[in-house]
Amino acid sequence: MYEGIIQELIDELGRLPGIGPKSAQRIAFHILQTETYDVTRLAEVLLEIREKVRFCEICGNVAEEATCSICRDPRRSPATICVVEEAKDVVAIERTREFRGLYHVLGGAISPIDGVGPDDLRIRSLVQRLADGVVTEVIIATDPNLEGEATATYLTRLLVQPNLRVTRLASGLPVGGDLEYADEVTLGRAFEGRRLVQH
Amino acid sequence: MYEGIIQELIDELGRLPGIGPKSAQRIAFHILQTETYDVTRLAEVLLEIREKVRFCEICGNVAEEATCSICRDPRRSPATICVVEEAKDVVAIERTREFRGLYHVLGGAISPIDGVGPDDLRIRSLVQRLADGVVTEVIIATDPNLEGEATATYLTRLLVQPNLRVTRLASGLPVGGDLEYADEVTLGRAFEGRRLVQH
Repeated sequence: MYEGIIQELIDELGRLPGIGPKSAQRIAFHILQTETYDVTRLAEVLLEIREKVRFCEICGNVAEEATCSICRDPRRSPATICVVEEAKDVVAIERTREFRGLYHVLGGAISPIDGVGPDDLRIRSLVQRLADGVVTEVIIATDPNLEGEATATYLTRLLVQPNLRVTRLASGLPVGGDLEYADEVTLGRAFEGRRLVQH
Repeated sequence: MYEGIIQELIDELGRLPGIGPKSAQRIAFHILQTETYDVTRLAEVLLEIREKVRFCEICGNVAEEATCSICRDPRRSPATICVVEEAKDVVAIERTREFRGLYHVLGGAISPIDGVGPDDLRIRSLVQRLADGVVTEVIIATDPNLEGEATATYLTRLLVQPNLRVTRLASGLPVGGDLEYADEVTLGRAFEGRRLVQH
């Protein structure tokens, strides 16, 4: 609908996830019309990002060096590894400030429908990290959906070895929510996992 | 939360309109992880767009030459000018295929709260376009919201001259909305049913 490069900008923006044609158009005109708005840095970062960003050789997290800042941090406990699907999940967990161990990023979850099997995930390198016996607990923190549960079950069976605890994040009611809005499965899990507060 | 350039990409994406921190993060990881995804062209277009895109000397629409493709089109009737707020609105109206005249893009609407007065809009050049008497109808197609209505009222009073009809798009446009989000049928009806406000 637009002439040349404007349409091209709208098309390219529209290829980004979660940006539909209307949003792409709005962003394009915002870029065009706001005189003080500088997209040069965005363009530069887009060109640099692929070259600069690597994945940590140890845990698979995003990194700008051979290893990520968490794996390099001597204050982190090497006895616990938290297994997540994506690098985004590392950031979400770091935000809680509850966990001071290390991570292992699988790079996805087992999903036969998408053709993702155990060999497509960073599972072999996880097993290798457990070989020297330093790690005493593996916390499985995959997503609480079908693929995440399947991956958790697979890992639980795989990681049977002496002196290693394998745990899974608790399921239950989200804090700050209303009980009546919880779905049946979540509410069922909350019942299953109820803990004794007084006897 | 992220290291260096990843955080920078998330920040830059988050500065675009309608993209919150979560969307910015999702887009950044999409760019990082999809190997076949090429953002080079997006980066190039972002760098080129400001230099390449101009505004039509006649109507103020976006253009890659001194005048836009609509003003250059000899098949368009020079007797009717449709006045819109933004270049986006031109595209929305073109999509209806109801209108074969020319446009005039104001570059916004009168909005005292945002400090936008008549002098900040391309109103003087509109008046100049009417001087030679070729134009017999001005269709005011500003947004059907407070600012658009104020602008329409201002223009209706300003454009009193012999042999000039000033019309306003018919109701049918949802009040309080943005013109660019109207569907083709509604917008087409609005054109058909435009009413005479002054002659």
